[in-house]
Amino acid sequence: MSIKIGIYGYGNLGRGIENAIRQNDDMELVAVFTRRSPDTLKISTEGAKVCHVSEADAYVGKIDVMILCGGSATDLPAQTPELAKKFSVVDSFDTHARIPEHFANVDAASRVGGNVAMISVGWDPGMFSLNRLLAGAILPDGKDYTFWGKGVSQGHSDAIRRIEGVADAKQYTIPVEEALDAVRSGSCPELTTRQKHTRECFVVAEEDADLARIEREIKEMPNYFADYDTTVHFISAEELKRDHSGIPHGGFVIRTGKTGKDLEHNHVIEYSLKLDSNPEFTASVIVAYARAVSRLAKEGAVGCKTVFDIPPAYLSPKSHEELISTLL
Amino acid sequence: MSIKIGIYGYGNLGRGIENAIRQNDDMELVAVFTRRSPDTLKISTEGAKVCHVSEADAYVGKIDVMILCGGSATDLPAQTPELAKKFSVVDSFDTHARIPEHFANVDAASRVGGNVAMISVGWDPGMFSLNRLLAGAILPDGKDYTFWGKGVSQGHSDAIRRIEGVADAKQYTIPVEEALDAVRSGSCPELTTRQKHTRECFVVAEEDADLARIEREIKEMPNYFADYDTTVHFISAEELKRDHSGIPHGGFVIRTGKTGKDLEHNHVIEYSLKLDSNPEFTASVIVAYARAVSRLAKEGAVGCKTVFDIPPAYLSPKSHEELISTLL
Repeated sequence: MSIKIGIYGYGNLGRGIENAIRQNDDMELVAVFTRRSPDTLKISTEGAKVCHVSEADAYVGKIDVMILCGGSATDLPAQTPELAKKFSVVDSFDTHARIPEHFANVDAASRVGGNVAMISVGWDPGMFSLNRLLAGAILPDGKDYTFWGKGVSQGHSDAIRRIEGVADAKQYTIPVEEALDAVRSGSCPELTTRQKHTRECFVVAEEDADLARIEREIKEMPNYFADYDTTVHFISAEELKRDHSGIPHGGFVIRTGKTGKDLEHNHVIEYSLKLDSNPEFTASVIVAYARAVSRLAKEGAVGCKTVFDIPPAYLSPKSHEELISTLL
Repeated sequence: MSIKIGIYGYGNLGRGIENAIRQNDDMELVAVFTRRSPDTLKISTEGAKVCHVSEADAYVGKIDVMILCGGSATDLPAQTPELAKKFSVVDSFDTHARIPEHFANVDAASRVGGNVAMISVGWDPGMFSLNRLLAGAILPDGKDYTFWGKGVSQGHSDAIRRIEGVADAKQYTIPVEEALDAVRSGSCPELTTRQKHTRECFVVAEEDADLARIEREIKEMPNYFADYDTTVHFISAEELKRDHSGIPHGGFVIRTGKTGKDLEHNHVIEYSLKLDSNPEFTASVIVAYARAVSRLAKEGAVGCKTVFDIPPAYLSPKSHEELISTLL
């Protein structure tokens, strides 16, 4: 019997989830829940319903896993605990500093409902976190580094768009090749923020805007740009649309560490992603973990889980016998 | 209380385990078991015993996890089931084709003893298997590739040494850079054995040996070399010792796959290892999983496990709270 999925929120991530479900034969999209008026929303899965979020209660027992596709700033801190009382859920909460608090809230709520709730699923947090844990456990005498990019940072693009005179903008985070090489060498360098990443901005200015002022405001913006070497290119709206409409991303988790009687041997563990579509890849990770959540819930598990808690075999549609004979 | 470890077999891997235990504060080496005469064996851990394998029974209850360091050809198929009746165990059984049979034998034996038994731990099988599973679950519409090297193949080095007129030899398996690039491009190429890896051999010939014949016998050796582009270098015993006494290895697991409404987006997941010492890195992986085995056994789990079955958090000495706040 297929795993019945609900999608709660239908932006880039929600659409990615819908597409990913179609790639997995053991899954079925039951309904998409939206805060908008349901009849204004067109989805691409035949047979699946579009419902207002207020109708979710009617789907208790009809959905195995509800996948939450809201934002981490305000949506998920409220939605995940609320929905975890009624459904087994997965979210992609990515505000690293607030994860312990979110975990505690979701854990309590899911236990009230007797459900399984997974938080912070995706690639960072998610697959990158998993690789930091594994590499650190294998090489205790070592150091790990995370690099992001080349890819679009939505937050940085938004920050540029808020500057007066900016019509539109796209920002790429780019890892510095020399820093990657230094890390891979095993020298365990101490790297500043500026040494790890550069930022490249493509900006569409409004007519007669003061380009020099815009560029200065970008480069001096605290937290977002001031600590980085930043390049600003002014381009036309047409060029932005033609050359920068994708949402690529990716990055690297590298750990180097030493072993041996006198720690004389060096090792490099590297995990990297190169993604054409950040939200679609995140969705693909979430859907695999939704399979695990459904299985755990069927086994009677309850409470909040993260990627650290899931036996990898639970992610795969293959039987244990098939995994052992084909992948081990 | 520290996790009490026994090492069963004291070759390169056993010594690697001993060193790795020293890098983990929560672990303690209790005893090394050997088939040799115990007083001929010098270990480097103060306070740990050296025992004959026949004394193992006396350590039931005194060792939390027995780590088996024998070979896959004849040692482990017999030793792992036998010892799993008495101890929780970890082995690095790496004959891929015989894993299902080994799993069944070890599973039955460990259940008789009420123990946890992990098989096929290391990097391939092991971390590479884990990455094949994860990447395949995330990107179902895709293809994965495993490359090995650059590194020393013990089996191929041994095969050369058996040729008449060869005094010593070392063989390196080398992944073909163009094949790696083709895979990373997402084109899902079909690659022959010859296209994926080359083999480079450093051979010390006996005096007056027929070098042309040796080179021909190497290059035409079925299974080992005939399907590869092989290079043979004749060098002196001194050069072999000076330049080729290490046991480096490594490799790549790469999966490319597609997502999107019309599968229009491409993604690359890559996991790679660059290891100065193959046995020491394998040992480091095994020791991390020994921690997991000890915990599972304390929780009352029984039966045979693989890397596919272990929740990643069990590998780390850090508390769940610390993992969530520092690594997620």
